[in-house]
Amino acid sequence: MQRAKRPGEAGTDDRERVTANYLAVRQWSERLCEPLTVEDYVIQTVVETSPPKWHLAHVSWFFETFLLLPYLADYKVFHPRFDYLFNSYYEQLDSGYWPRAQRGLLSRPGVAEIYDYRRHVDAAMGRLIRECPDAQWGSVSELLLLGLNHEQQHQELLITDIKRNFACNPLRPAYREDISGSELVSPESMTYIPFTGGLTEIGDRGMGFAYDNERPRHRVFLQPFRLADRLVSNAEFREFVEDDGYSHPALWLSDGWQIIVRERWDAPRYWERIDGDWFEMTLGGVRPLNSGEPVTHLSYYEADAFATWAGRRLPTEAEWERAASEVPINGNFADSGLLHPAPAPKGDGLRQLFGDVWEWTCSAYLPYPGYRAPDGALGEYNGKFMANQMVLRGGSCATPDGHVRPSYRNFFYPHERWQFMGLRLAEDA
Amino acid sequence: MQRAKRPGEAGTDDRERVTANYLAVRQWSERLCEPLTVEDYVIQTVVETSPPKWHLAHVSWFFETFLLLPYLADYKVFHPRFDYLFNSYYEQLDSGYWPRAQRGLLSRPGVAEIYDYRRHVDAAMGRLIRECPDAQWGSVSELLLLGLNHEQQHQELLITDIKRNFACNPLRPAYREDISGSELVSPESMTYIPFTGGLTEIGDRGMGFAYDNERPRHRVFLQPFRLADRLVSNAEFREFVEDDGYSHPALWLSDGWQIIVRERWDAPRYWERIDGDWFEMTLGGVRPLNSGEPVTHLSYYEADAFATWAGRRLPTEAEWERAASEVPINGNFADSGLLHPAPAPKGDGLRQLFGDVWEWTCSAYLPYPGYRAPDGALGEYNGKFMANQMVLRGGSCATPDGHVRPSYRNFFYPHERWQFMGLRLAEDA
Amino acid sequence: MQRAKRPGEAGTDDRERVTANYLAVRQWSERLCEPLTVEDYVIQTVVETSPPKWHLAHVSWFFETFLLLPYLADYKVFHPRFDYLFNSYYEQLDSGYWPRAQRGLLSRPGVAEIYDYRRHVDAAMGRLIRECPDAQWGSVSELLLLGLNHEQQHQELLITDIKRNFACNPLRPAYREDISGSELVSPESMTYIPFTGGLTEIGDRGMGFAYDNERPRHRVFLQPFRLADRLVSNAEFREFVEDDGYSHPALWLSDGWQIIVRERWDAPRYWERIDGDWFEMTLGGVRPLNSGEPVTHLSYYEADAFATWAGRRLPTEAEWERAASEVPINGNFADSGLLHPAPAPKGDGLRQLFGDVWEWTCSAYLPYPGYRAPDGALGEYNGKFMANQMVLRGGSCATPDGHVRPSYRNFFYPHERWQFMGLRLAEDA
Amino acid sequence: MQRAKRPGEAGTDDRERVTANYLAVRQWSERLCEPLTVEDYVIQTVVETSPPKWHLAHVSWFFETFLLLPYLADYKVFHPRFDYLFNSYYEQLDSGYWPRAQRGLLSRPGVAEIYDYRRHVDAAMGRLIRECPDAQWGSVSELLLLGLNHEQQHQELLITDIKRNFACNPLRPAYREDISGSELVSPESMTYIPFTGGLTEIGDRGMGFAYDNERPRHRVFLQPFRLADRLVSNAEFREFVEDDGYSHPALWLSDGWQIIVRERWDAPRYWERIDGDWFEMTLGGVRPLNSGEPVTHLSYYEADAFATWAGRRLPTEAEWERAASEVPINGNFADSGLLHPAPAPKGDGLRQLFGDVWEWTCSAYLPYPGYRAPDGALGEYNGKFMANQMVLRGGSCATPDGHVRPSYRNFFYPHERWQFMGLRLAEDA
Repeated sequence: MQRAKRPGEAGTDDRERVTANYLAVRQWSERLCEPLTVEDYVIQTVVETSPPKWHLAHVSWFFETFLLLPYLADYKVFHPRFDYLFNSYYEQLDSGYWPRAQRGLLSRPGVAEIYDYRRHVDAAMGRLIRECPDAQWGSVSELLLLGLNHEQQHQELLITDIKRNFACNPLRPAYREDISGSELVSPESMTYIPFTGGLTEIGDRGMGFAYDNERPRHRVFLQPFRLADRLVSNAEFREFVEDDGYSHPALWLSDGWQIIVRERWDAPRYWERIDGDWFEMTLGGVRPLNSGEPVTHLSYYEADAFATWAGRRLPTEAEWERAASEVPINGNFADSGLLHPAPAPKGDGLRQLFGDVWEWTCSAYLPYPGYRAPDGALGEYNGKFMANQMVLRGGSCATPDGHVRPSYRNFFYPHERWQFMGLRLAEDA
Repeated sequence: MQRAKRPGEAGTDDRERVTANYLAVRQWSERLCEPLTVEDYVIQTVVETSPPKWHLAHVSWFFETFLLLPYLADYKVFHPRFDYLFNSYYEQLDSGYWPRAQRGLLSRPGVAEIYDYRRHVDAAMGRLIRECPDAQWGSVSELLLLGLNHEQQHQELLITDIKRNFACNPLRPAYREDISGSELVSPESMTYIPFTGGLTEIGDRGMGFAYDNERPRHRVFLQPFRLADRLVSNAEFREFVEDDGYSHPALWLSDGWQIIVRERWDAPRYWERIDGDWFEMTLGGVRPLNSGEPVTHLSYYEADAFATWAGRRLPTEAEWERAASEVPINGNFADSGLLHPAPAPKGDGLRQLFGDVWEWTCSAYLPYPGYRAPDGALGEYNGKFMANQMVLRGGSCATPDGHVRPSYRNFFYPHERWQFMGLRLAEDA
Repeated sequence: MQRAKRPGEAGTDDRERVTANYLAVRQWSERLCEPLTVEDYVIQTVVETSPPKWHLAHVSWFFETFLLLPYLADYKVFHPRFDYLFNSYYEQLDSGYWPRAQRGLLSRPGVAEIYDYRRHVDAAMGRLIRECPDAQWGSVSELLLLGLNHEQQHQELLITDIKRNFACNPLRPAYREDISGSELVSPESMTYIPFTGGLTEIGDRGMGFAYDNERPRHRVFLQPFRLADRLVSNAEFREFVEDDGYSHPALWLSDGWQIIVRERWDAPRYWERIDGDWFEMTLGGVRPLNSGEPVTHLSYYEADAFATWAGRRLPTEAEWERAASEVPINGNFADSGLLHPAPAPKGDGLRQLFGDVWEWTCSAYLPYPGYRAPDGALGEYNGKFMANQMVLRGGSCATPDGHVRPSYRNFFYPHERWQFMGLRLAEDA
Repeated sequence: MQRAKRPGEAGTDDRERVTANYLAVRQWSERLCEPLTVEDYVIQTVVETSPPKWHLAHVSWFFETFLLLPYLADYKVFHPRFDYLFNSYYEQLDSGYWPRAQRGLLSRPGVAEIYDYRRHVDAAMGRLIRECPDAQWGSVSELLLLGLNHEQQHQELLITDIKRNFACNPLRPAYREDISGSELVSPESMTYIPFTGGLTEIGDRGMGFAYDNERPRHRVFLQPFRLADRLVSNAEFREFVEDDGYSHPALWLSDGWQIIVRERWDAPRYWERIDGDWFEMTLGGVRPLNSGEPVTHLSYYEADAFATWAGRRLPTEAEWERAASEVPINGNFADSGLLHPAPAPKGDGLRQLFGDVWEWTCSAYLPYPGYRAPDGALGEYNGKFMANQMVLRGGSCATPDGHVRPSYRNFFYPHERWQFMGLRLAEDA
């Protein structure tokens, strides 16, 4: 008969489950890269994106730096310069790092060497999971979970960066020819779901993994509000475009107006007008715009201007979380294979809260009351970005299933739009 | 015997009081310019600032555009191109506007012509105040109050822009030689005043003039907190500087770290090290740094990094307003003539909440729940800036007396530091 | 009876003549500034230009630095920081210099103080001319001649910089309302004057003042060529514009094409199309374009593209000098008061070689064979610019009378066009 | 018995010889790419360079555009978008072209597809050479020769671009590990060879292929001069570096001084100081600096500053050609396999005129007297670059053998230094 585990002790089963989880996440990264040519791994078409091979190496470097070197006694790094090449932004590390804007300038190390690096790290991680003393298991398993969530974030970036790369290529290549788009539909009418105001709690409930920025859970006071039952669709956004929404300064935040004038934006990022019709670049290539699909690849400025035009507003992150806490975490995530937002399912009630597109909120990305960043370099993971960015909620069609939760806070600068970003309208009750 | 006024009717006394108020504000702008040479009126040393003559004209254009043209029947504009030259950013106006970055490129209209313009507007305003039909008095007097508050804001900018101009001149001229600095003192020890949490109300109480962005008054939930009894002093900030605070990335927000590296910031904006000692450029010229004075001309990034280094944080705007609602609006404002923050007065309790320096809060400048921007071009006054900026509270030594109140929300980009900006520490209770 | 002068000795007459010449040149600078307001003295509207008050000070600094400090024993500088403020680019001087792009950021020293500076320098120069020992007179008088020619160059820049400043002001102020434009005329037909080829000599003949870059005189071999008898007129250039010359890449040098696309150039610098008609900004304000006047304010790229379109080419500097050596140095210089190029005088033969506009040649500005730059900081006067610039010849309507000669080499970057620059066509015989 | 060929007719032998020549040149491009990984083909590390796969495609596009489409009746283009992707700068072509600065952003078409493109073009070219009617043979064979010379130019760029790419990679990969460097030697003393002055002829003699910019041959007059018998070596340039040559403005042209200050240049492009010793990045990896090898990867500014420091000057292109006309075209070209400049061979007289490094002359790249650019898009080949660039002569260790001649004019902007550029000193006799 098996003895009872002591608190903090990891049974063999735990470790096997962790290994399986580790391998599943790691393999998904590589599966996402299967449609790529070697050349596709190399390029960086704008500073916000990274070459696919850089993503594959960086997530491995994360395990090497924060797990293997501190916890696996005789671990030997794969290559002494990889610390410099694949550190993304941890300023406190001595190595420094290769400039972000120049990640696409490196043909070496090559793709094969980076896969070797992954194998090297995977083997060592397998050993660490098996052999780590119980006394360290708590720290190790916690960091490992962080490492896997980190890799999942980069899986989403892999998809959106590849899309960005292909969309700027005049040949408009498809990432996968075999992705079928959703049937062409018109959106159903939008209705608003009322929520009462009052004190509510938001933030991590402590029931599983969560990032530091979701803590501490705390009370906020809400006014009564109403939330649209689905995302804004292409049909609605096209109305805005065709009503000259991009030409009326009164609809725009000042910083947004400046950028659309300077960059000559007149539609969402991947819309293309060809012979008078609207098309959209997708991971399956260029397709006719589907009216019923949620609009995506919008900056915060565009989402906000649309809401102003519509006589509504964006929800706050607390409102969104209040609503999301009551619905199951189902939706069109990356595992569906669509890799594109889909029309709202028919039915009543709140739909599309999870998956499809990240929803811009009108909340700035700031620390929750009582927030403390972790000590050391990992303290740079989330806290140092708490300025100038806006919160997005709910995950997208490029997010791995199981990665998000109601309290999950994503954040981007308001001008960015290469992620699957869209919006849901809100209004005061 | 005077008959009773009908509701909405403006009595002669009201109009005389308004005229007096109008003239007082207008004269203060000109008095601030008395120490200037003609040349000083012309220059713009960085895009955030404007030439003094532009300020004098722009505030007059505001009255011309939003009061005289709509409400004074036979008003003739002073010059047909001034609409184009002195509109600051109202995108909805047909005239367009001369680019902000190029305000220092115009020698014409000259200073004398701009004073003529002011006389022209003042005469017409006098007539409008006297002759405006009662039916319009409500709108006119409301807009006039807005125009005067607007001019007061530009009075503060006049002072800070002149300081910026003089500080970049290698001759370091004094704005006024006769400004005496505060006695050199060391700061008293800092103590923290506790506040209970719970629901509290913030925003305009409707007892007098307030900007749209202070409305609607609404409830927020606060955790218990503590607030430093005085502003952070030069002595404390020098410790941070000399502890190599500007060299430790762990203390900084990511965007802040990038700017201090790129711009080589290593001290507040106007500090100068001369032969190993610290000096500070003031409106009275360069002086030895006074340990007991509040530190000023800090960006949000520097304020935040200092708080992190000190193991504290910045207050939220709701915390600040909660505390400020209980104290009288006294302080070192522009009318004191110091034009520089002064050491905290001796005593107990919260000091320096008003005047001295604008206090950075850790709150992003966002609309209050239920906020609605006014219709028309004046809707651009505050609402369109609700992105990427942080809220500052309390007024400064360059703010005209009477201009601020507990609910007053100032806002700047987190990298800006040419205003009199400083900080007060807070902590969780 | 006056004794004969020893070689190198300066007689009283010489010194009086020099003083008169000195004062005449100095006064002309100030006379050019008479139409300016104080505000006009301060601004710099583009990096190539300088504020008028800077010019007035810089030319005085030149006398102070290269004459008074080395040669006037007890000379005291007017202000210790002026060396830093008014050194233009002499890298070898210890003082360093205030950045060129920021000359318009300084309101102090003011205009009155700069006139005081001029009086201070003039008084000392008067003393130096009177009291300088004969042994030093050779050096002093040579440097003084250089200083006066230097000031004359800045007199031309004063005019062209003021024009640039006024042309960018939406009010389009006139420098002098009383300048009468030339009568509206059509140009006479253009004929070509033939020149034989063979060996010819170019460069300074040593008969008077010349810059180092005109030396040594040397032989060059020329093919036979023909030179247009007059400058290209507005009428001809308008044909080029209206034949879409600015839209045909085949006409343009690659660097020129890039700049016209990037900057959206579609006409000479000061042409304006108003309601379908062409106008031109002049120092007398905006006027209808005069067909018969020489086209001016062209870059090298535009001059070259026009010549290509016309099936001709620009002359080389040697060809130009060959032709110019045979004609008297008469023309429309600044002293005429027109301050604008004038239609070619009626008649036969080469006209307009001197004055009106600087003529772009197709010769790069390079050292003549055997060229040696002077030692010391004055060696930076001309030699260090011998890269990336093109030679212009003949002087302009803004050049002081007496300043140019056939061997005079002016030089500017090929994209610059704020000087009075135009062209004369040439062709192979 | 074979009949005699008519004038203009191409015999079978001619065509076979042309085919062989065509194939030899085309194969050399591909052989140069053999050491590359697929990833190496993709990147562009600075705007002046191009990805290797772009070079391979562009030279093929040249044949397709200027030979196959006009002359091979039923030719079908390989891909309809390649015209847009691989046109380099021919503005007159309707297709437009993909921006030069973004050539490294395209992962598709991939390397394999580009080799297919080459096969497609080669097959068609084979057919054109065999089947072209005699009446067109003159034009075709002339264009073909241009196409091959064009491809040779890109072969040199392939080598220098690969070097640039590898030198910016922190791993400093070698292009070929098997390249042996020259033996470490000290340079022999430098002597000067005298040349008489007088009239001389330069330019294409019409004895074989030459570019338009080498014509027409024409007379120039030279002063007597002397030319160093060998190139400046690393030993000599190190003296300049260690004499603080990069810190003395008096040595530098103004534009050069600005760039070395702004870019912090303090040595030739690929020199690296490691633990106090000088090393040099080569195509064989990083090696200790070899004193006896010619210095290379210098800008014009550095070459000129060195010459000034040495009390000498750079030769004019006419001087260089005068000297080069008397020596055989032998030297260290790409075919030697060194791919790096080698120490001067022992001996007397002028050495290293051909191969090793391109020699900066002090002549601006301008049209020869009587120059006419060809009609049509090919007129953009050379003529449109005749501004702002300087002439280099003699070929380099990356130039294919047989490609250069005494009249060959290479040209680059004075700040560029990623080519194998060096210098030879000259002086007045």
